[in-house]
Amino acid sequence: MLNKSYLTKSILYRIYSSVITFSISYLLTRKLVLSASIGFLDMGIKIFSYHFFDEIWYKVTGYKVKPAVIWLTGLSGSGKTTVANDLVVKLKKKSIIPVLLDGDEIRHAIKQHDFDEDSRKKHNLNVGYISSLFEKQGNVVVVSLISPYDDIRNEVRKMCTNFVEVYVSTGLQVCINRDPKGLYKKAQAGEIKDFTGLSAPYFAPLNPEITIDTSILSVNDCSDLILNFIKK
Amino acid sequence: MLNKSYLTKSILYRIYSSVITFSISYLLTRKLVLSASIGFLDMGIKIFSYHFFDEIWYKVTGYKVKPAVIWLTGLSGSGKTTVANDLVVKLKKKSIIPVLLDGDEIRHAIKQHDFDEDSRKKHNLNVGYISSLFEKQGNVVVVSLISPYDDIRNEVRKMCTNFVEVYVSTGLQVCINRDPKGLYKKAQAGEIKDFTGLSAPYFAPLNPEITIDTSILSVNDCSDLILNFIKK
Repeated sequence: MLNKSYLTKSILYRIYSSVITFSISYLLTRKLVLSASIGFLDMGIKIFSYHFFDEIWYKVTGYKVKPAVIWLTGLSGSGKTTVANDLVVKLKKKSIIPVLLDGDEIRHAIKQHDFDEDSRKKHNLNVGYISSLFEKQGNVVVVSLISPYDDIRNEVRKMCTNFVEVYVSTGLQVCINRDPKGLYKKAQAGEIKDFTGLSAPYFAPLNPEITIDTSILSVNDCSDLILNFIKK
Repeated sequence: MLNKSYLTKSILYRIYSSVITFSISYLLTRKLVLSASIGFLDMGIKIFSYHFFDEIWYKVTGYKVKPAVIWLTGLSGSGKTTVANDLVVKLKKKSIIPVLLDGDEIRHAIKQHDFDEDSRKKHNLNVGYISSLFEKQGNVVVVSLISPYDDIRNEVRKMCTNFVEVYVSTGLQVCINRDPKGLYKKAQAGEIKDFTGLSAPYFAPLNPEITIDTSILSVNDCSDLILNFIKK
C-alpha cells in the first residue's frame, strides 16, 4: 500500500515532529544551536527507530503474517466454523483483523439456495474468488466452507497467492453424533437432498497444508497449528 | 480497525520515542532534569500533535473519504469503466487505494456466463454483496456494472452503509455509435441475446446520488463530480 503520497506524508510528519522537539528544547534551554542539534538528531534517529520498534513489536507479540487465504474444508459438523472463529479471535488479539467469509451468509445474500453439483461448484468458486480479492488487498482471509470438490479447491488455490488448505478431517460418524444444527437428522429423514457425507460426495484434499481432527485435538490446539503455519 | 493491541502498540511507541528524545537531550546537555522535562513535554504534545497533523494533511490534500460503495450503472458503452478507472487513478494519488470490482472478471472467475434475468440478478447481487464486504473492511469500492434492475440495485443499497449510485445516463444512440467492444453490432446481428438496451431492459435509477452523461461531460469532470460527492 506504499505510494508516493504516503511517503510524502511520512517525511513531512518526520520534519513536523522534529520541529516540535526543537521548539520544546528551545523553550526550555533558550539555546538555538543546542536545540537545533537535538531536533536534527531526533529526526535522523527516528527515521530508523520506528522501523526498529516495529520489528521488535512483531518479534515480541510473535505474529507477522502475510496475506493469505486459510481455507477450512470438511464435513458439516466437523468443527470448521468453531476453529475458524477461534483463529479469528487469536489473530485479532495480535492486531491482525482477518476477513471471515461465511458460505451460508453469501448464499443468503445472493439468494443461491441450490446444492446440486453445479451450483455448489459455482458457489465455492465464487467464495474462492472473493477470498482472492481480499488477499490481493492485503488481508488474511479465513474461510469455513464444506467445499467437497478437490478440483474446485485446486482452482481456488490457483486464484490465490498464499493458499492454506486446512482439512478438518473429523470423521463422519463423529459429525453425525454431534449434528449441531440437526441437519444430519433431517438429511437421514429425506428432508434435505444432496447432503454431503450422506447423499452427496466429499472428496478429501490430497495435499492439504494442514490436517486437523477436532475429535482428537482441542479447538485451541487446532487454531494454534494454523497460526504456527502462517506465521512468517 | 482500532483495537486493544493497536492502542498498546501506539502507547508503547509514544513512550519509546520520547525516551529517545530524552536520551538525545541528555547526551547533548548532560542535565537530567532538563532532559526529562523535554522528554515528558515531547510525549505529552505528540499524543495530540499526530492527530492534528493528520487533520491538516487531509485538509491540504483535500481528500478524506469514508468507506463507500460507488456503483456506476448504465448501458454498455455509456462510459462507466472509463469514469471508474479515472476515479481510481485520482483516489490513488490521494493515498486512497480503492477496490475496483469488475463484473466481467467475476463472471469469468466463477464461470457464470448466462445473461437471462435470473442469472443477471444473482450476479449483480453477488457483486453487491462483495462490495458490502469490502466496505465493511473500511475500503472505498468502485463498481462498474450495467446492473439494469432497479430493485436489485436497491437491494444492494440496503446491504451497504454508504451507497453512492452513479447513473451513467449516456443515451442509447450514443452508446450504439461508440460501440467500443463491437457488442451492439453483434447484438443487432442476433449473435448476442438478452443484450441490455436492445433485447433486454434497462431500468434507470429513480433517485441516484449522481447522474452523469459522458456525451456532455468530460471524463475528468465526471470523476470530479463523484470525488466531490464522497469527500467528507
